Formats: sequence, C-alpha cells, structure tokens
Amino acid sequence: MSGAPDYGRAFGLMREGAGETWRDYTRHAFVEGLKDGSLPREAFLHYLRQDYVFLVHFSRAWALAVVKGETHEEMLAASATVNGLISEEMKLHIVVCAEAGISEADLFATPERPENLAYTRFVLEVGYSGDFMSLLAALAPCVMGYGEIGARLADEATSDTYRDWIDTYAGAEYQQTCRDVGALLDGALIRRLDEGYDQLPVWSRLCKTFEMATRLEVGFWQMGLTP
Amino acid sequence: MSGAPDYGRAFGLMREGAGETWRDYTRHAFVEGLKDGSLPREAFLHYLRQDYVFLVHFSRAWALAVVKGETHEEMLAASATVNGLISEEMKLHIVVCAEAGISEADLFATPERPENLAYTRFVLEVGYSGDFMSLLAALAPCVMGYGEIGARLADEATSDTYRDWIDTYAGAEYQQTCRDVGALLDGALIRRLDEGYDQLPVWSRLCKTFEMATRLEVGFWQMGLTP
Amino acid sequence: MSGAPDYGRAFGLMREGAGETWRDYTRHAFVEGLKDGSLPREAFLHYLRQDYVFLVHFSRAWALAVVKGETHEEMLAASATVNGLISEEMKLHIVVCAEAGISEADLFATPERPENLAYTRFVLEVGYSGDFMSLLAALAPCVMGYGEIGARLADEATSDTYRDWIDTYAGAEYQQTCRDVGALLDGALIRRLDEGYDQLPVWSRLCKTFEMATRLEVGFWQMGLTP
Amino acid sequence: MSGAPDYGRAFGLMREGAGETWRDYTRHAFVEGLKDGSLPREAFLHYLRQDYVFLVHFSRAWALAVVKGETHEEMLAASATVNGLISEEMKLHIVVCAEAGISEADLFATPERPENLAYTRFVLEVGYSGDFMSLLAALAPCVMGYGEIGARLADEATSDTYRDWIDTYAGAEYQQTCRDVGALLDGALIRRLDEGYDQLPVWSRLCKTFEMATRLEVGFWQMGLTP
Repeated sequence: MSGAPDYGRAFGLMREGAGETWRDYTRHAFVEGLKDGSLPREAFLHYLRQDYVFLVHFSRAWALAVVKGETHEEMLAASATVNGLISEEMKLHIVVCAEAGISEADLFATPERPENLAYTRFVLEVGYSGDFMSLLAALAPCVMGYGEIGARLADEATSDTYRDWIDTYAGAEYQQTCRDVGALLDGALIRRLDEGYDQLPVWSRLCKTFEMATRLEVGFWQMGLTP
Repeated sequence: MSGAPDYGRAFGLMREGAGETWRDYTRHAFVEGLKDGSLPREAFLHYLRQDYVFLVHFSRAWALAVVKGETHEEMLAASATVNGLISEEMKLHIVVCAEAGISEADLFATPERPENLAYTRFVLEVGYSGDFMSLLAALAPCVMGYGEIGARLADEATSDTYRDWIDTYAGAEYQQTCRDVGALLDGALIRRLDEGYDQLPVWSRLCKTFEMATRLEVGFWQMGLTP
Repeated sequence: MSGAPDYGRAFGLMREGAGETWRDYTRHAFVEGLKDGSLPREAFLHYLRQDYVFLVHFSRAWALAVVKGETHEEMLAASATVNGLISEEMKLHIVVCAEAGISEADLFATPERPENLAYTRFVLEVGYSGDFMSLLAALAPCVMGYGEIGARLADEATSDTYRDWIDTYAGAEYQQTCRDVGALLDGALIRRLDEGYDQLPVWSRLCKTFEMATRLEVGFWQMGLTP
Repeated sequence: MSGAPDYGRAFGLMREGAGETWRDYTRHAFVEGLKDGSLPREAFLHYLRQDYVFLVHFSRAWALAVVKGETHEEMLAASATVNGLISEEMKLHIVVCAEAGISEADLFATPERPENLAYTRFVLEVGYSGDFMSLLAALAPCVMGYGEIGARLADEATSDTYRDWIDTYAGAEYQQTCRDVGALLDGALIRRLDEGYDQLPVWSRLCKTFEMATRLEVGFWQMGLTP
C-alpha cells in the first residue's frame, strides 16, 4: 500500500501491525462503491444517518481526551477536535441529509445499530479505563482511515456521484487534521515512554486497541451495505 | 408470560417495557436448544468460552457499581457480587471447559467476538457515564434473564444434556441473587427518586438502557449459534 | 442578599440552601480586599497563579460535562465553555501574570496547593462518579459565585486597584455565561426529573454537592490570603 | 531509615523519591503520640471517625482498581482488598468506636473534613483519569505507610495505650498485605513497561502521584491533631 499519506511514525507502525484488517477497512466494498459510484443512494443515506449517531459518541470520546490530556497542548489539540466535530462535521451531516429530505428531527431519532454501538462504546470504554495514549490508539483508525480513503479516492474515483464526500476527506483541511492527530499521538508516546516506545510491552496492547477499532470500522462499512 | 419469578417491582416494569425483546432473549433458539438438548455441543462450548470473556468484563462492571454506590449497603451488595463472579462463576467455566479438554490457557486466549464486545462495553460505558441506577439497569437483564430462563427450563427441560447449566441458574442460590439484585434496584430507585420513580422522565431512559442490554443479550445467543 | 443577579431557579434554590457557606464565600475577606483595594499585590498574584492551575482542572471537568451530556444542546453548551476556558480565560491569566513579571514557564510550574487540589479533584470525582446534573451542581458555585461577586463589586468597589478583575466578571459576556449555565442546569433537571425536581430525595444530594463546592471556594480564598 | 520492611522494588524507589515527605508522614507527631501514648484520646477518636469516612472512599478506589486491572490476577488481587476493606477494616472501626460510645449511626454521620476529602478525591481522580499503575501509585502510600509505621511502633512503643492499633498494622496479616500490594505494583510495572520502567518519563509522573498522596497523608495526621 505504498503511496498512503504520511500521518506520523506511531500511526504508520500501528497501521502496519493491523495488516489485513487495515486493508479490509480501507478497501471495503462500501468504499469501492463510493469510488465508482455504484453504491446505492439508499445505502449511502443509511450510512450517513448512522454516522451522525456515531459522531455524537465520537465527539464524547474526544471530549474525554481533553479530560485525560496531561499538558496544555494535549488539552488544546483535543478540544479543537471536539469543536470541529460538534460544530462542523455534525452540521455537515444535517445539511446533506436535509437535501435528501431527511429532517433534523428524523436524523436525531435514528435508531442506533449494534455495529455502530459496538464501535463507539469500545472507544469510550478504552478512554475511560485507560490513559490518553490508549484513547488516541482507539480514535486513530477512524480519523486517519478516512483521510487515507479520501486521498486515494480523490485520485482513483471514476464517478462524481460521491465527489462531495470524497472531497471532504481528501481536502487540505482534513488531511492536516490527520497529520495533527498523528503528531499528537507521536508526541504523547514519546513524552511518556521515550523514543523506544514500540519496544515496550504496553505497545502491543496499544496496537491491539488500534486493530480492534479497525475491525469495528469494517463492521461499520458492512452495516452500511445492509440498510 | 405469567409464572415468571418475582424479582421486584422495578425489574418487573422494565421487563414489561422491553416487551418482545425480552421474549426474544429468554425464548431464543439457543435457550430452546438447552431445553430439549438439541443444541450442538460445539455451539455450547463456543458459548461458554465467549461467556468466560464476558464474565471478565461483567465483573469489572459490577466493580464499577461498588465505586458508584452511595451507601454502605449498596457498596456491600455490589462487592459481594464481584466476588461471586470472579471467585466462583469464572472458576465454574474453567472447570466445565477443562472437562471438555479446553485448557485454562486456551480459555484465556479466546478471541472476543464483536457481539460479545458490544454488550460488555455498552454496560461499562453506561456505568462510567451514568450513575448507580443506570448501571444497575444495564446489569439487570443478564442477571435476571438467566434466573428466569433457569427457572423455566428446570420445569420444562425434556433432556438431561444441559442439566448442570440449568441447575446452576435454577438453583436456590442463584434465584436468591436475582431477588437480591432486584431489591438493590428497587432500593436505589426509591432512595434517589421516591416511590413515584416510574413517573419521571429519567425512568424512560433507564428502561431504554435495560432494553438495549436485552437486545445485546439476543445478539449474544445468536452468536452462540454460529461458532 | 436581595439584589443578587438572577441565574435561574435551581441555582437560586441551591444558593439559598447553602446559606451561611454561600455568604462566607461571596463576602470573604479576600473579596472585600478586592473591593477596597486593600488586598496585597503579592496575595493577588499568588491567587492568580493558583487559579491558573485551577483552570486547567476546571476545564477538564467541563470537558467531562461534554462526555456526560445527553442531548446535542447539552454537549454544545458544555463544549463552548471548555473552549472559552482553555482558549480565553487561561490566556488572560498568562497575560496578567506576564505583566507582573511572571513568565509563562514559571506560571506552568506553579506547585499546586492542597486547598486547590481538594476543590478540583472533588469536582472531577463528582463528575466521573455521577451524572450530568451532579457535575453541574459541582461546577455552579465557581461560575455563578464569580458572577455574583463581580456584579456586586462593580457597584460597591471603592478602589480601582483590582478594577480589571472586577470588570471581567461584572461584564456583559460573563454575566451571560452565568445565565446560560443557570439555564443549562434548570433544563437538565427538568428534562430528567420534571418540574418537581426539588421535591425528590436526589435533590438534597445535589444541594450537598453544591454546598461542598462552595465550602471549597471558601478554602480557596483563604489560601489566597496566605501566599 | 534502614530497617524499614521490604515491600518490593518499585515501592522502595518511590519511597526514596518522596524523601522528606515520606519521613514527615511516617514520623508525624500524631504517630509519635501513638508510640508513647501521649496522643489525647479525643484526637484518636476524631481520627478514627475521619478514617472511617476515608475507608469508604478508599474502598471505592480499590474497586476502581478491579475495573482497571488487565489480568485475572490483577482483578483478583484488587477484589480481595476491596472485600477486606469493606467487610473487615470498616467493621473494626465500628467496633472500636462503639466501645468508645460512638454509635454506628453517629459514625456514619461524621462530617467529612476537607483534608480527608482532598486525599480520597485525589486518589479517585487519579484512578479514573489514569491507568492501573497510576492508581496503585496513589494507593500505595496509605497501605505501605501504615505497615511501616506499625512495624516500627511494635518495636519502639513505650506505652500500651494504642497497642491494639499498633498490633493491627504490625501484625502478620497486614504485613503480608503490604508485600502483596508491593508485588502487585512491581508486576504491573514490569508487565507494561518492562524491567527498565524507572528509566522512562512516565516513571517520574508515577513518583509525583506517590509523593502527592504522601503529602496528603501528612495533612491527614495533622487534621487528626485538631479535632
């Protein structure tokens, strides 16, 4: 998978460690359907609605990162992300859904699917039970996976059907967010565990957390295909 | 569903509120397979292994109930349950699996299925984010559902294949646990919200928590059927 | 104490319930020293430095309120406060201290006094162990107490020595924040417990939380007088 | 301070790092008053009542250690301690206070002093925000400090006035608890960070947590002297 954007050292190692699971996530049939436009509109809207519910809990997990941060920089970085998610990304979903005739009230009332719940509760529980590093390891697959998918699809897309979605995640702003989160992760690890962090036993647990979140992303796409 | 054991008022109301979902859980094909002995041994052992991993996290959730308790009685009741789970019920699984040739090391290494993870992380997250009442509402379906299933199957079983499993949950000790947890729930609600607790808006949220945990139990049985 | 600003019903009831403790807090010798300018500069700067450390943990507690919020409105309101605290109020302290010759590095390195630690850890623990309402009850005395003190001192101050400090909290923006947090508290209570919330047993626990936070504010001012 | 009991490597290093603060705690005037019997009975009973309230929250912190444990052994060890605290040590206080004419109801109603609250909320917040290692670092000073004090006073006491108290903590059972918790701490560090844990940046933060808890122990004794 050469050519993937560089989001920092720790992310690179975790991504490599997740192996096939990472590929299953970033090359999922749902993603390929976005690329060539073959994804049914119904599946896309179903996904968007579930993703809205996802963002509610994902924002809560990022807010927990503010609580768990140990420096002003860590708190500021996490806080900026919470704001971006709650004020911007959630609004975007409201707009897209509104254009498709789904009212805001209707969007709010979306029943949460188990595949969706499994993912966010896993991330939140890791965040509550563990420290800042564990929480970032659970948050990274979503943030950076979408960045990697967006970047690839901007090159490879053969249809304009889902161009808006692709542009959001391929865009300079989102790509910068991915690099920022990658730098936050690198800094957090070095600050606590020094440069040799990937030689410590705790590293394998962080990688397992990353891989499990990646597996739950696969489940999320799969759910997207079955409205 | 007359004839179900009486585990207290609040549980009765929540169970009624969960309607069909409660029935789907307590009358699941997996349960009926335990009753008439038609459940394949492979499925049962697969379930037992996943249930062992489940108990690890379920014990953690009960330990969280000790933290969230507000009286000595609440702390003592939750603490006794943690002990029972960690020292007794988990050992029971080790013994049964050992008899089936599954070593303890093997049992420990069981990979957690997403349906399993979804359930325990949901309960733990409710426990971390909410108060003692919310946590009990999330814990109740597992505790009392098994009590109700055990009591019914003790009467209705047409095969001795899974008699040991049935006897455990139909037994006087486990039935007493169900009544104790029911009384703990009733007491917690009255102590905080007074006798009219089921007329307050917060009650509908507690019932939703109970129902979601029940739905996740359905998913757990379903997983049991697909080793 | 007629003439105190109106920050909503629940706050009014809690404030009344805290009785003498509320008076000890809002009429503390430290406050009167701000009013007539008799507070030694050294005490003020010592207070400012401790208050900076306080704000770090207070921001974390507000971030926890985002995690514990149950509606988009609750999350948004809490998130806006986190941002205000981390991006604005903490910067203000940095500026004032810099003018007094205290470098940012020096400010960061301020050793936390036990009276300071007691307060923030109490609030954070209430936030972790309890729900959104409990956390707001622990956060309210700081937010609204400063509003009430600022409003009174804007009228009664006989010296310009601490005019900047007074203006910050007497200002329209901060007064609006107090009314917003008051409305957030009122809304949270009604949404969960209905209009009769102050008749329920849980209400007395919320009031105890509010009163303990108020007592810890008294300790904080007292600490301010003993650099 | 040669002659102090050996409770494991990590504890030894943390104790050494806490330097004078550790000495201020274990050689506090309150402790010397227990040794020569000069401590006023009133101060002792005041201390016992506050210590009862302390144990409520300290048990909750140990229950949190069950939640944060990552192996069956860690969960079991923490769970055994919770039980010991809730079922045994709290009962002991009830008995001693009853003999002094303090009823159980009276004991329960003891108003919590700020020095007491500061300590337990600090430990609980560390436990919620951090991982298993951080929580153990916050719990260790109380557990092992009492063991060290008990062991020394058993040798040096010149009065029988507080012999029962001394015997409890000098006794074989409590000394074993100290060694067990020391081994739990050593094991947790090695399991996550390998043998060189004390060379990593995270180690200095763990030591700071240990030292702060030790400082709060000093404050607790000081409070004991001022009923």
